[in-house]
Amino acid sequence: MVVDTQNEKPRHRIQLNKVGVKDLKTFLITERSGLRHHIIPRVEFTIDLPADLKGVHMSRLVESMTEVISEEFSIYKSVEELQNRILDALSVKHGFKRGEIIFDFEFSYASKTPASRKRTWEVCDITASTVKAEGKPNIHCAEVRVIGNTVCPHCMANNHGLTHMQRAVGTLGVEGTTDQIPTYGDMIDVIERSFSSPTYSLLKLEDEMHVTKEMYDNPLFVEDVCRNILQKAKEKFEDLTLEMYAEARSLESIHKHDVIAQGQIVVNGG
Amino acid sequence: MVVDTQNEKPRHRIQLNKVGVKDLKTFLITERSGLRHHIIPRVEFTIDLPADLKGVHMSRLVESMTEVISEEFSIYKSVEELQNRILDALSVKHGFKRGEIIFDFEFSYASKTPASRKRTWEVCDITASTVKAEGKPNIHCAEVRVIGNTVCPHCMANNHGLTHMQRAVGTLGVEGTTDQIPTYGDMIDVIERSFSSPTYSLLKLEDEMHVTKEMYDNPLFVEDVCRNILQKAKEKFEDLTLEMYAEARSLESIHKHDVIAQGQIVVNGG
Amino acid sequence: MVVDTQNEKPRHRIQLNKVGVKDLKTFLITERSGLRHHIIPRVEFTIDLPADLKGVHMSRLVESMTEVISEEFSIYKSVEELQNRILDALSVKHGFKRGEIIFDFEFSYASKTPASRKRTWEVCDITASTVKAEGKPNIHCAEVRVIGNTVCPHCMANNHGLTHMQRAVGTLGVEGTTDQIPTYGDMIDVIERSFSSPTYSLLKLEDEMHVTKEMYDNPLFVEDVCRNILQKAKEKFEDLTLEMYAEARSLESIHKHDVIAQGQIVVNGG
Amino acid sequence: MVVDTQNEKPRHRIQLNKVGVKDLKTFLITERSGLRHHIIPRVEFTIDLPADLKGVHMSRLVESMTEVISEEFSIYKSVEELQNRILDALSVKHGFKRGEIIFDFEFSYASKTPASRKRTWEVCDITASTVKAEGKPNIHCAEVRVIGNTVCPHCMANNHGLTHMQRAVGTLGVEGTTDQIPTYGDMIDVIERSFSSPTYSLLKLEDEMHVTKEMYDNPLFVEDVCRNILQKAKEKFEDLTLEMYAEARSLESIHKHDVIAQGQIVVNGG
Repeated sequence: MVVDTQNEKPRHRIQLNKVGVKDLKTFLITERSGLRHHIIPRVEFTIDLPADLKGVHMSRLVESMTEVISEEFSIYKSVEELQNRILDALSVKHGFKRGEIIFDFEFSYASKTPASRKRTWEVCDITASTVKAEGKPNIHCAEVRVIGNTVCPHCMANNHGLTHMQRAVGTLGVEGTTDQIPTYGDMIDVIERSFSSPTYSLLKLEDEMHVTKEMYDNPLFVEDVCRNILQKAKEKFEDLTLEMYAEARSLESIHKHDVIAQGQIVVNGG
Repeated sequence: MVVDTQNEKPRHRIQLNKVGVKDLKTFLITERSGLRHHIIPRVEFTIDLPADLKGVHMSRLVESMTEVISEEFSIYKSVEELQNRILDALSVKHGFKRGEIIFDFEFSYASKTPASRKRTWEVCDITASTVKAEGKPNIHCAEVRVIGNTVCPHCMANNHGLTHMQRAVGTLGVEGTTDQIPTYGDMIDVIERSFSSPTYSLLKLEDEMHVTKEMYDNPLFVEDVCRNILQKAKEKFEDLTLEMYAEARSLESIHKHDVIAQGQIVVNGG
Repeated sequence: MVVDTQNEKPRHRIQLNKVGVKDLKTFLITERSGLRHHIIPRVEFTIDLPADLKGVHMSRLVESMTEVISEEFSIYKSVEELQNRILDALSVKHGFKRGEIIFDFEFSYASKTPASRKRTWEVCDITASTVKAEGKPNIHCAEVRVIGNTVCPHCMANNHGLTHMQRAVGTLGVEGTTDQIPTYGDMIDVIERSFSSPTYSLLKLEDEMHVTKEMYDNPLFVEDVCRNILQKAKEKFEDLTLEMYAEARSLESIHKHDVIAQGQIVVNGG
Repeated sequence: MVVDTQNEKPRHRIQLNKVGVKDLKTFLITERSGLRHHIIPRVEFTIDLPADLKGVHMSRLVESMTEVISEEFSIYKSVEELQNRILDALSVKHGFKRGEIIFDFEFSYASKTPASRKRTWEVCDITASTVKAEGKPNIHCAEVRVIGNTVCPHCMANNHGLTHMQRAVGTLGVEGTTDQIPTYGDMIDVIERSFSSPTYSLLKLEDEMHVTKEMYDNPLFVEDVCRNILQKAKEKFEDLTLEMYAEARSLESIHKHDVIAQGQIVVNGG
């Protein structure tokens, strides 16, 4: 006979917000518009725990996820759809008022060099999460982080056109219901167009000249890049209803530290 | 004549929440009760930026910090006091409605092995921050992360006393005004007493037997450790007014992933 | 007219061992025995630079890799084969005496829970490299890192069968020519059988009992795990000619630090 | 009666190169020329293990280190001197043919801004190790990593003086006997003078102009920076006998990846 320790009374009756697994790596496949993505996400999957229960049955969380991921004949068309299914599967196995599943993963996409038009492969970082709470529609958050650059307009204005520039990271996060989340490709496009210039794995000499010219023509503070991301996201996603936030981070070439700018905005496409 | 690019109008009039430096490493000294600590924090220091200004004068942030840290004849007795002074110094150089400074650092403390009573040195991780907002008292957050262990009570109950155990990390965060923040030593003590057993750099055989016995005598889920931290903090800091949160994370020995539990609580010592 | 700065004389005539790109992320596909793997490696790709040349044409390294990866109608059956092809492609575009390409990536594989026989997905870390040097066959190094656990036999022997246990990481590296490198699956198998017990993403109660029993039946120091890996690799790969090394690392549950053991061995299957 | 499991015969008679502790954090103080440094190193401390012994007595390693660090009335004047003492202390407690101790830590130093001459605090990363092997003098390795920048000379030559620039990391490693190891300050100085320009935590506008001008006047590939470090170290340490290696790494502003150059050299001051 099994002793169900998790269902005993806890010594201290304190409600817990999040209990579950973290830094679990697994494997899944999505397919949208004929593009198949194999993803190895780092997973955090948690539920709330009432004050009068000692523990969560952790294996039911992992089992729900593994069963949904391994189902044959069903390729999910988005991470959001997959996460909805996992939370639905869990709700049959384990009670919760609020469940949340977060995937962190790398995402690859094809690009073209700007002048020589050669093919390149680029990779960005994504965090995608879903919250299922009693009596509410599921809410997703998709955060995309892409590398570009910044060029200092203050130094340029005071230094006869010469200035410092550096690698930068742009972040766009969007939060909304399942049918409102844009594709990662559209989010990447917004971020790349917000830098002094986008960056590429491969640049032949003519491409390098092109990127360098674009940088000098387009000097931007992190403050400018952050506002660009928010403004361009607002325009691109004007038909959607989303809370959005952005960050620009610059790995300063004249300092050992970074500089950052963060902001947020709401679009209401309804 | 200097062109003051930062004071120009931005292209997109969007207010930004946080603009400043990140991952800046610096050096400072605190001294309390005769104990001197040299600290090399990783710093994030940001202010808000109104919608109609293009940029923040970043060098004024760094200058405020460097001046306060380098002042001679003044050793600060706590990180909170030092951060208050830096934010005050900045408010003379640069306008802001909300300023925030965050230090991440390692903190060393002496301990004794549990049976042989030899001296050991232990190190934990700390994040300490201060927010200065218009018309409000400064609010600090101190978060301490200490390594201990957990022992699975469910496996023990179903397996004739045999069970799995593992390294764990306990976190306690407290938020309050300057005179309410406890010492790091008291926070470390709360966390260490919340595990199945505390851990030590040095353990002679008799100490190892002692720690192992304590572990088997005290099987705890992460849920239990998290609640222990909250309960013991509530008791220890009952005379203070603080918002508190805790996390326990277990680096499962039978899995490749971790399990976590998070909760929060308020003490009102007034 | 293009100025070819790289071909100028350097200020200081010092030969350099390795010049190239690092932490470049790209995307590739391998397929062996019907199993297709999408991989996002972090790449280091370098060549030597003679004392009388100022620089390497870095874009030719990236171009060689991108062209080989993007070729249609050709799926590579192993990372080694792919890396050979990239180094061959580079040797047409750029002179070098020694070229080296290193991929770091995560690798997923299906497993079964030990008692309930449910499917699980496991993920390990791999570093795979190829060196092409003048007048020698290409040499590959494949290093696989898998998570398992250790159980202390010294504490068990002195403590009436009670002991501490913890998560551990086992590493096996093999070095040899293209036709001698074993599959990652065989290397994972060697490592998993060398721990006190392997670990799993998913464990139902009966599996947890099974794993815990295996751990108590099989107490091992990191020294034992390291020697197990070397011995089992020697037996499994006895028909191959390889230099091999191993490491076991234990995330001690009674300490805040890890313990490690490293060794090496040669098998000569000729 | 204690069972000494470590002294039993192992199942597989394989000699191990390194057995010991890793990622142990401790606390120590050095003082040279009146400058006191509190250091929190991450420690790896290992010895070899003969084929016929099952295990190392790990606690003796930690005990040797803790006793030497905690001795009163004795402040060590260098990390090398301290590491020699720890290895000597261990050799009394535990047999070994080869012992190695490695400290990784952050090191802070005061600097001046280049034009306004204000004080700044800078921080670099250091790895310092000592090997004690039978019948040989102790050999130390000191590796210092400092942040600066690079400016592309190829792009500048082909683009009417406009070019891209970026943050860079310079590394200098030296290996020699106790009396040959230079100070960290001298090693930092060599690296800082090898970049297009050094970097600073604090830069007022006049400093920023100064640094930017220096960058455009001094375009350098990573290959140039690496050779500069080796050449300047050779000149600065010409009276010493050292094996030296260097790396320059550039966080390219036009790419998502880094570029690196590595070389080595010997100085024989005898």
